[in-house]
Amino acid sequence: MLGRLNHVGIATPSIARSIETYKTLLGADVIGVPFDLPAQGVKVCFIDAPNTQIELIEPYDDASPIAGFLKKNPAGGQHHVCFEVPDIHAAVADMKAKGATILGEPRTGAHGTPIVFVHPRDMGGVLVELMETPQEGAH
Amino acid sequence: MLGRLNHVGIATPSIARSIETYKTLLGADVIGVPFDLPAQGVKVCFIDAPNTQIELIEPYDDASPIAGFLKKNPAGGQHHVCFEVPDIHAAVADMKAKGATILGEPRTGAHGTPIVFVHPRDMGGVLVELMETPQEGAH
Repeated sequence: MLGRLNHVGIATPSIARSIETYKTLLGADVIGVPFDLPAQGVKVCFIDAPNTQIELIEPYDDASPIAGFLKKNPAGGQHHVCFEVPDIHAAVADMKAKGATILGEPRTGAHGTPIVFVHPRDMGGVLVELMETPQEGAH
Repeated sequence: MLGRLNHVGIATPSIARSIETYKTLLGADVIGVPFDLPAQGVKVCFIDAPNTQIELIEPYDDASPIAGFLKKNPAGGQHHVCFEVPDIHAAVADMKAKGATILGEPRTGAHGTPIVFVHPRDMGGVLVELMETPQEGAH
């Protein structure tokens, strides 16, 4: 079964400005506190929709993995989609067995559970994050 | 309140190939029958996640509005995100009053309810579709 869409990752040059946009134009009112993920080179902020989340991602520094994306898309844009999987190691093994390229080893993501990214060339040009489903009650 | 994320729109040169990818690599098993929307210049197919949908979009012909997107992204890629609104005309009036550019007039979307697109320059580089919430039981 396709996993739950945990979030859509949206790169932005300014989380603060994007928050204003989502508030003003789309009426977003459940907005997390932005926080840094220096190990991943990004600052992130989650905006809740009733059924999923938008993850705003801003570069932490010039070495950020999304710096290149923003160079190509200075205004920002859709960066990745994240599907939940019950077990990240099983998911990685399964995808590798099917010939997909997994970018790096599982690491702790913005929701505190292990994540990996799948190479866009395996997924029709879409950068796909797999994230181990957070436990009930956690985000 | 930010509306429900109805779907993530993903452009692809081949819906058939993308269906195979989502089935094989991500285990998707609730996959609609692809259908044509000639008025919008696209063929579409919905894949269900437990909480939202992926909308695969393939050009209907060379004049398709997504032909240009695929020229820039031949493998495909994330094209838009679609949020539900209770009333499309109220949403359009509200966004226009706040200075946003709405692309065209409301028209019937893939789920049979009225939709519009908001210019990406108003939404941090993200093409946002607004879709009137389908009635209970409809998709």
